[in-house]
Amino acid sequence: TLDFDLTDNSHRRYNPLTDSWVLVSPHRAKRPWLGQKETASRPNEPEFDEKCYLCPGNQRASGEINPQYSSTLIFPNDFPAVKLNQPELKNSGGSKSLKERFMKVQSVEGNCYVICFSPKHNLTLPLMPLGDVVNVVEAWTQLYLKLESEAKVEGKPYKYLQIFENKGTAMGCSNLHPHGQAWCLSTIPNEVENEFKAFAKYSDQHSSCLLGDYVALELEERERLVLENDSFIVVVPYWAVWPFETLLISKKQLHSLTDFSDKEKRDLATILKTLTIKYDNLFETSFPYSMGLHQAPLNATQEEKDTAWFHMHFYPPLLRSATVRKFLVGFELLGEPQRDLTAEQAAKRLVDLEGNTHYTEKL
Amino acid sequence: TLDFDLTDNSHRRYNPLTDSWVLVSPHRAKRPWLGQKETASRPNEPEFDEKCYLCPGNQRASGEINPQYSSTLIFPNDFPAVKLNQPELKNSGGSKSLKERFMKVQSVEGNCYVICFSPKHNLTLPLMPLGDVVNVVEAWTQLYLKLESEAKVEGKPYKYLQIFENKGTAMGCSNLHPHGQAWCLSTIPNEVENEFKAFAKYSDQHSSCLLGDYVALELEERERLVLENDSFIVVVPYWAVWPFETLLISKKQLHSLTDFSDKEKRDLATILKTLTIKYDNLFETSFPYSMGLHQAPLNATQEEKDTAWFHMHFYPPLLRSATVRKFLVGFELLGEPQRDLTAEQAAKRLVDLEGNTHYTEKL
Ligand SMILES: O=P(O)(O)O[C@H]1O[C@H](CO)[C@@H](O)[C@H](O)[C@H]1O
Ligand SMILES: O=P(O)(O)O[C@H]1O[C@H](CO)[C@@H](O)[C@H](O)[C@H]1O
Repeated sequence: TLDFDLTDNSHRRYNPLTDSWVLVSPHRAKRPWLGQKETASRPNEPEFDEKCYLCPGNQRASGEINPQYSSTLIFPNDFPAVKLNQPELKNSGGSKSLKERFMKVQSVEGNCYVICFSPKHNLTLPLMPLGDVVNVVEAWTQLYLKLESEAKVEGKPYKYLQIFENKGTAMGCSNLHPHGQAWCLSTIPNEVENEFKAFAKYSDQHSSCLLGDYVALELEERERLVLENDSFIVVVPYWAVWPFETLLISKKQLHSLTDFSDKEKRDLATILKTLTIKYDNLFETSFPYSMGLHQAPLNATQEEKDTAWFHMHFYPPLLRSATVRKFLVGFELLGEPQRDLTAEQAAKRLVDLEGNTHYTEKL
Repeated sequence: TLDFDLTDNSHRRYNPLTDSWVLVSPHRAKRPWLGQKETASRPNEPEFDEKCYLCPGNQRASGEINPQYSSTLIFPNDFPAVKLNQPELKNSGGSKSLKERFMKVQSVEGNCYVICFSPKHNLTLPLMPLGDVVNVVEAWTQLYLKLESEAKVEGKPYKYLQIFENKGTAMGCSNLHPHGQAWCLSTIPNEVENEFKAFAKYSDQHSSCLLGDYVALELEERERLVLENDSFIVVVPYWAVWPFETLLISKKQLHSLTDFSDKEKRDLATILKTLTIKYDNLFETSFPYSMGLHQAPLNATQEEKDTAWFHMHFYPPLLRSATVRKFLVGFELLGEPQRDLTAEQAAKRLVDLEGNTHYTEKL
């Protein structure tokens, strides 16, 4: 009798960070695609675009003029998802009424920021000089520190800072100028809260840290390991949902960017640059993704610091080419996320790719 | 001092079905959109397309020729996500090893089906005569019964049947011919399992059914009620994530399609047709969505029947027009789903729309 073959037989894998499952159908990658195609790659953009509201010297929706910045630029989002100074939300009493059970609501205050990675309109993280990527890491760190201090000193209701980047039109990015965002909220967002719960539960059960143990395992197995340097690893996690999803994890416990040494900041920039070069080289396109940092809450208590472990998630949609993406739709939304290749297969593809030279530099 | 205003102040709402939160930013709908646009509407398609592998008499990828069907047609998916007769998966022992903790895996067997709603290539649920929509409901029911019997009589490892439809290219549909899918699995998918857990917990706590109580509340409040007939309601749930997400719920406890009377089947078809006409009329386009049925597992035990309550979720991506969709990306994936209008605002838009006549019939 045959053995179960993870590269051919359908199975589901458990995600310990979200306490959920993903269905893996490795034989399904062969099906033809007749559906929607994405716009391939980034068109040839100029270094400066007079119509871009993120380029230096140009005007934003607010009317403000961007400074002639030469490195990074942080400013408040003109259309923020959260605001400060809302009226108080009084929850209607009566804990036994149906309303109380089904209409649970909390006020959320905060602030949203845009972070331009570079003044040059036509760059992206993989194309930026390493020093400039270090500047981005530094800008994130400074924003984190500034908001911590505004919370402490001015009493602003800031609890968590979610730093992220939507790259490419396929991931809803509305401006190609290299930039990310940072949303600062008075509440800990759902996904982050769930991870903290999983981390705390794991510590209780095993007297060690979930991500620390996972790093140790992946360094031993190496099958899903994409990149490694002194401070970080990048793996396609065992439970990846997106075709080429990766998880970047610090080797030792760093609770947040403010815990990083200069060497660690540089190591983060290095591994980010290499990973994104590999991504671009995979389908020879400016690889779309949503990515973000998960770290400790602002002004974290000692307990919160002990629970948090710095990591970043990359969720890229492309499946088979620059134009064919994975849709997480019907079955995925109603039933369970489903993927068409194994994490190990995806990792191997990424490992085998050139990580130093971007494909456009070879032309 | 001002009162908290749900139509202007940011807040988060709790989803009792998934035990998670959604961030609502009602003031944000004003922001301009410069990003990706969807292809508007459905081009003028012919009733029969010789290149369509779902049209009657045409050849499928498997080589098989479709019969000259005149109502619905069900056949096994040529690229199924799950298969039957896999080798046994032996989990590597040692419950204390790291591998055991991080590499949890289960075999999943099953079968996938395609369900053509009509032989006519250019129809959709809202454009089909009511009787033909009743036929679709009947086809779903017959499939459910057939698979129950294959499990019981032939011992096939079928536990749950997920019936769904991906409509439109924006939701990953690769063929415009009106059709849905049904994936039959040996496991209960994640989302369904989570709902069952929430239902069971609610029953324990309140000695009543979660969805039954929710129907009662929405019928009293009426603010989020979009449609109602003798057997079903459609609401924009309090915790909706997608801009015009709706939840269709049976008024009394029906555990699955096999529990429906003829009247209930007809009532389901009627409300489905009206809802999808309203959706199409909203932006005068063939409205994309993913939708699906949640019901009891196949050959359910009495306990499973008592827990289940028939309902359907509609997840449509469009936000502001036929071409501008909501992207659930960076913050949503890393932090928390975020929406730009309240559930009540979305419900009002849907209520105000014509539900009998499709916009193309008025031209
Ligand atoms: O089976 P289809 O229609 O080709 O494929 C579509 O629906 C499936 C089920 O939701 C998804 O897994 C695919 O990503 C999507 O493109
Ligand atoms: O803020 P942007 O880039 O205009 O908007 C993008 O990112 C946001 C945060 O993930 C999402 O809520 C939007 O749907 C998306 O289009």
